[in-house]
Amino acid sequence: MPPRCRVRRPDAATIAAMLILMHAHATRAEIDDVMDHVRSHGYEPIELPGADRIAIGVLGSHPASIRDNVVGLPGVVDAIPVSKPYKMVGLEWHPARSVVRVGSAEFGGAGFAVAAGPCAIESSAQMVATARGVRASGATMLRGGAYKPRTSPYSFRGLGVAGLELLAEARAETGLPVVTEVLTPSEVEVVAQWADMLQVGTRNAQNFALLEAVGQAGKPVLLKRGMSNTVEEWLLSAEYVLSQGNPDVVLCERGIRSFETATRNTLDLSAVPLVRSLSHLPIVVDPSHATGHRHLVAPMALAALACGADGLLIEVHPQPDEALSDGAQSLTLEQFGTLMAELRRIAPAVGREMVGVSVG
Amino acid sequence: MPPRCRVRRPDAATIAAMLILMHAHATRAEIDDVMDHVRSHGYEPIELPGADRIAIGVLGSHPASIRDNVVGLPGVVDAIPVSKPYKMVGLEWHPARSVVRVGSAEFGGAGFAVAAGPCAIESSAQMVATARGVRASGATMLRGGAYKPRTSPYSFRGLGVAGLELLAEARAETGLPVVTEVLTPSEVEVVAQWADMLQVGTRNAQNFALLEAVGQAGKPVLLKRGMSNTVEEWLLSAEYVLSQGNPDVVLCERGIRSFETATRNTLDLSAVPLVRSLSHLPIVVDPSHATGHRHLVAPMALAALACGADGLLIEVHPQPDEALSDGAQSLTLEQFGTLMAELRRIAPAVGREMVGVSVG
Amino acid sequence: MPPRCRVRRPDAATIAAMLILMHAHATRAEIDDVMDHVRSHGYEPIELPGADRIAIGVLGSHPASIRDNVVGLPGVVDAIPVSKPYKMVGLEWHPARSVVRVGSAEFGGAGFAVAAGPCAIESSAQMVATARGVRASGATMLRGGAYKPRTSPYSFRGLGVAGLELLAEARAETGLPVVTEVLTPSEVEVVAQWADMLQVGTRNAQNFALLEAVGQAGKPVLLKRGMSNTVEEWLLSAEYVLSQGNPDVVLCERGIRSFETATRNTLDLSAVPLVRSLSHLPIVVDPSHATGHRHLVAPMALAALACGADGLLIEVHPQPDEALSDGAQSLTLEQFGTLMAELRRIAPAVGREMVGVSVG
Amino acid sequence: MPPRCRVRRPDAATIAAMLILMHAHATRAEIDDVMDHVRSHGYEPIELPGADRIAIGVLGSHPASIRDNVVGLPGVVDAIPVSKPYKMVGLEWHPARSVVRVGSAEFGGAGFAVAAGPCAIESSAQMVATARGVRASGATMLRGGAYKPRTSPYSFRGLGVAGLELLAEARAETGLPVVTEVLTPSEVEVVAQWADMLQVGTRNAQNFALLEAVGQAGKPVLLKRGMSNTVEEWLLSAEYVLSQGNPDVVLCERGIRSFETATRNTLDLSAVPLVRSLSHLPIVVDPSHATGHRHLVAPMALAALACGADGLLIEVHPQPDEALSDGAQSLTLEQFGTLMAELRRIAPAVGREMVGVSVG
Repeated sequence: MPPRCRVRRPDAATIAAMLILMHAHATRAEIDDVMDHVRSHGYEPIELPGADRIAIGVLGSHPASIRDNVVGLPGVVDAIPVSKPYKMVGLEWHPARSVVRVGSAEFGGAGFAVAAGPCAIESSAQMVATARGVRASGATMLRGGAYKPRTSPYSFRGLGVAGLELLAEARAETGLPVVTEVLTPSEVEVVAQWADMLQVGTRNAQNFALLEAVGQAGKPVLLKRGMSNTVEEWLLSAEYVLSQGNPDVVLCERGIRSFETATRNTLDLSAVPLVRSLSHLPIVVDPSHATGHRHLVAPMALAALACGADGLLIEVHPQPDEALSDGAQSLTLEQFGTLMAELRRIAPAVGREMVGVSVG
Repeated sequence: MPPRCRVRRPDAATIAAMLILMHAHATRAEIDDVMDHVRSHGYEPIELPGADRIAIGVLGSHPASIRDNVVGLPGVVDAIPVSKPYKMVGLEWHPARSVVRVGSAEFGGAGFAVAAGPCAIESSAQMVATARGVRASGATMLRGGAYKPRTSPYSFRGLGVAGLELLAEARAETGLPVVTEVLTPSEVEVVAQWADMLQVGTRNAQNFALLEAVGQAGKPVLLKRGMSNTVEEWLLSAEYVLSQGNPDVVLCERGIRSFETATRNTLDLSAVPLVRSLSHLPIVVDPSHATGHRHLVAPMALAALACGADGLLIEVHPQPDEALSDGAQSLTLEQFGTLMAELRRIAPAVGREMVGVSVG
Repeated sequence: MPPRCRVRRPDAATIAAMLILMHAHATRAEIDDVMDHVRSHGYEPIELPGADRIAIGVLGSHPASIRDNVVGLPGVVDAIPVSKPYKMVGLEWHPARSVVRVGSAEFGGAGFAVAAGPCAIESSAQMVATARGVRASGATMLRGGAYKPRTSPYSFRGLGVAGLELLAEARAETGLPVVTEVLTPSEVEVVAQWADMLQVGTRNAQNFALLEAVGQAGKPVLLKRGMSNTVEEWLLSAEYVLSQGNPDVVLCERGIRSFETATRNTLDLSAVPLVRSLSHLPIVVDPSHATGHRHLVAPMALAALACGADGLLIEVHPQPDEALSDGAQSLTLEQFGTLMAELRRIAPAVGREMVGVSVG
Repeated sequence: MPPRCRVRRPDAATIAAMLILMHAHATRAEIDDVMDHVRSHGYEPIELPGADRIAIGVLGSHPASIRDNVVGLPGVVDAIPVSKPYKMVGLEWHPARSVVRVGSAEFGGAGFAVAAGPCAIESSAQMVATARGVRASGATMLRGGAYKPRTSPYSFRGLGVAGLELLAEARAETGLPVVTEVLTPSEVEVVAQWADMLQVGTRNAQNFALLEAVGQAGKPVLLKRGMSNTVEEWLLSAEYVLSQGNPDVVLCERGIRSFETATRNTLDLSAVPLVRSLSHLPIVVDPSHATGHRHLVAPMALAALACGADGLLIEVHPQPDEALSDGAQSLTLEQFGTLMAELRRIAPAVGREMVGVSVG
């Protein structure tokens, strides 16, 4: 076979190692053969003699890339790669915490930012009423979906550009910056014209073409965790955005898929301090999609604040029982006001400042 | 076949219904046959005519018990049982919240109870030092394992009765009531002699013989959630204990099993407000086993308080780097003191009172 | 609020019903209010009187769309929607099984089709050697990735158009039709120029813009199951493609994400007979990505044949220990030949015919 | 602290190693400190110098036992234990495959054993009719539950000793050996008096007291996989039984818990070849509990045979629509006969022999 394209990327800085474990009965020739194989891929193997077997250590850039090539060799029990494969999003090489600014809103730092609004943009009246209401309670950003990813092709899928216009109208009325979801690379440009922040949703968390497109759009990105993504995969998705030159990513935990069906998803709140121990990026929580039930939203919002989140994404609708989408998990404006008051009571106890202007 | 033992239990009070959905092309004869079948099991079916098909409603006690018998009948698409199958643990028939008292400690009510101590009881010095330390920081109960369930038969499995004696010694020194795990029915009696509260662990959450044994032991029970149990299954396990005449059950969320491996389990904190909306039993959270990492314990403990938990179970060890079990997730006494101080700052903001005496 | 855009879609044919369960203590006024609410959304409620409570049945088109609107009403315990929300992919309205033809290959019917080839297209020599080898063993289609979705931005991501050219070259050499993955709508046109069948991968299984784009491309589609998608969600993704006028969809089970980490994914083989009981679309199995281990591929391929799959997708590489991607799960040409011989032995016993020409 | 009880068990033969990964910026002093710490626990550390960081290898008996003690040390990124912690059940030290004999039935070897019968023992007529019917179709063992673990305390929980007597009666009538579940250590003796094989159910798969009790009972054990147990944990549960001197364990895959709710559990059929690559113990499959739907049982039974299982556990009931338990997943005697005929057709193609006497 002719020489090929194995690309050694210039990321020696990612943390990586691999341990190749040999059978207790592996022969010297088998061990040597594995060592040679490792060398042929450009790595220096290190022999670790143990009581009843030998192991072989491999360090360097991406040793895991040869794991698949060695596990089948005679005498090998297993090869365990160890890595923190992200680089730009990681704390090790960027120890200062990032702050992402979106208009007047700020994610990261000592503040605690709350973006609120309906799941789907439905009408001018709905959007303006919501925007005024949530601003009065102290929200710092307005959310609302113009392009809706729906499991069924027969569900309401959003108003599209007309929805973006309504979002902009609500911004003009209230001064709140707006965040909305973008579904596909070709729509990034138009959404970026209207929105202050681009949201990548859970079903697109590993849509790498979209991640690169928002990485080039010149707007901050709200990156939801894929519902079956590990924290490591999620950080790698963020790495896609950063690798395009866009440092302004806010991560959003919104629940993962588990066997429990009493809640819409399983809110993995431990991911908040975990992400904060691994990455410098801000992280917010969406308790509305995570739980799917209105009465669980406020308790989980308070918990998110308590465990170190940098903010919240909350679904609010002036009339949840008439909502086109996600009514069961939307707060009324009054319920949202109550929640904001509760957050304000806890914030000082955890060293956070509620930054929105509350007129309540 | 002779008459048999279908036991109709006297629990008309549990919430139950079933909807049998017929094919669009189901014939009248098929529909009638299903209705007859339902009647033959002692239920009254109700026909629901729809635009393109018929459904059949069944209400009463345990209609789900005949689901398996009707889904195979001609013309049936599916039969969906709807139930809240627990009764004694449910809020509907017992709207007043329960308070469980264990010596001087109290779970439920306005207080927030913290049980702390090592995973495994190792020595007198370890237990007394821990008990004094955690009491000084405000813990109201001491925990420690004398019988340890271990995945591998080759792991350290606890000191047994000798461990119970060390636990009692630490109680005598500090006045703190003690909770410890019991693994099998035949050991309930001996554990109940020494302990103030019996813990049923996650691997035994559906060990029904053990649940009944602790239900008869005359001591309060700390019931951990099975790592793959739904909230409904967990409440039914509690129902086993209550059905034996023991009303003193405290539920403990300790993480469920999901695809995420960065944490030992996935702490399902949404279960806290969810359980509180379904049951009158107190609920506490164990962030140590849930996360498996020391640096995640404190944030999740604060989150548990914020979302409505009635208390915590925290692993504390005077020298975690020498611990025989679970060292990576144990707090030092100093770290525990810091956590308690943080909890004290948040508690008033969520209407809770930290009841332990803090001398720190 | 002004009149809005609740779109009633013309899909009365989907199976749908909802059961609203009232509290045992619900008042007559509360029950009437719920009934009125249901009527205000254009449905006719039906009262079901039970021993200790009332339930309310709702049939018709999409009653689940108002679930969110009723669960919060006073006196309501829960509202359980029952639905088979897909239509065009379902057996109920299309009882004849579909056969999808891709050049000389055929999915569905009595045949058993095997598509084989490397994970990533690397070189001309690799592709031609693989194509000749797998054809000789009886494969009916060639697979290979030119655009690779990779979790990390630093992994090898495919040769792009150059890879498509190599794929076409291998087709010209062997006559085997080719299937390859497409990642984003804007690339559908170019991929459709070169490929005989378009693959939508697991990470894009709910990329609805992509699903619609391949629905309009005039080529058969291989739709992998999303790694966290239920069978119902997967069928709805297929419905997206069919709703654009493209009936030629082949479903591919490739493993779901569970807590088990010993295999790359958890192959949900029960989905094969389940899908066949719900849908007329052909279904194939990819045991390579599902298991991630070469020695598990053949057993699971045989199992797929035995439980009713219409074909397989198998990763084959002439030199797995030099592969750029997925070497650990790739069969050698010799191993592939052995597998094909084993399949040939079982096929007649389950009423299947191996349709490829085997020269071995 | 006084000297304590760290037990070094004599299992140097288990495969074990650990890789400690240091920070890129770790100081020489930090590295030395970790090396000292490792030595203080009785292990010899090996330094692995890499391009941008140091790693430290640890081999020997149970290095993972000190993982918790080192991960918190300054300069440590992570410590990754690598182990195959089981010994007696593993192939490495016991390369010959085990055959477990239960009366005239045999698990392992070239035969393919089928145990069939109802979920719950209900009556003499039911058991005798079932036993005769399944024997006539070629079953080699009878199954039936006298003690039923039920999620709800209000469900039918079995006939107890009266059920065991009915089971023995059916054995006397047909000569088929019988397997039945035991729920708690104190019942092992009585169940072992009546049964030929003791079943440990999924909810007790980590009930270690029960595992040890059946390990001492002198009867073969059928060990179901815990519904949330990894294959490694399952093998460790088997190790508990073997460590008590009982080598006769048959493993039973019965489905794991995943997010998919269309089937009762997710049958992890890949576990069959995986277990066979790790352990010498026979493995059978229970497609009835795994799928929960009658129409999925036969396809998955065929798949189990095809992928290398040593046998099956099938629920059969003479009148499934009258069954007290699990009717929806039980085959009729006629359906069971059809399945056995299909298995007979496939068996020779995979080198298996159906050993039961079929009179059909």
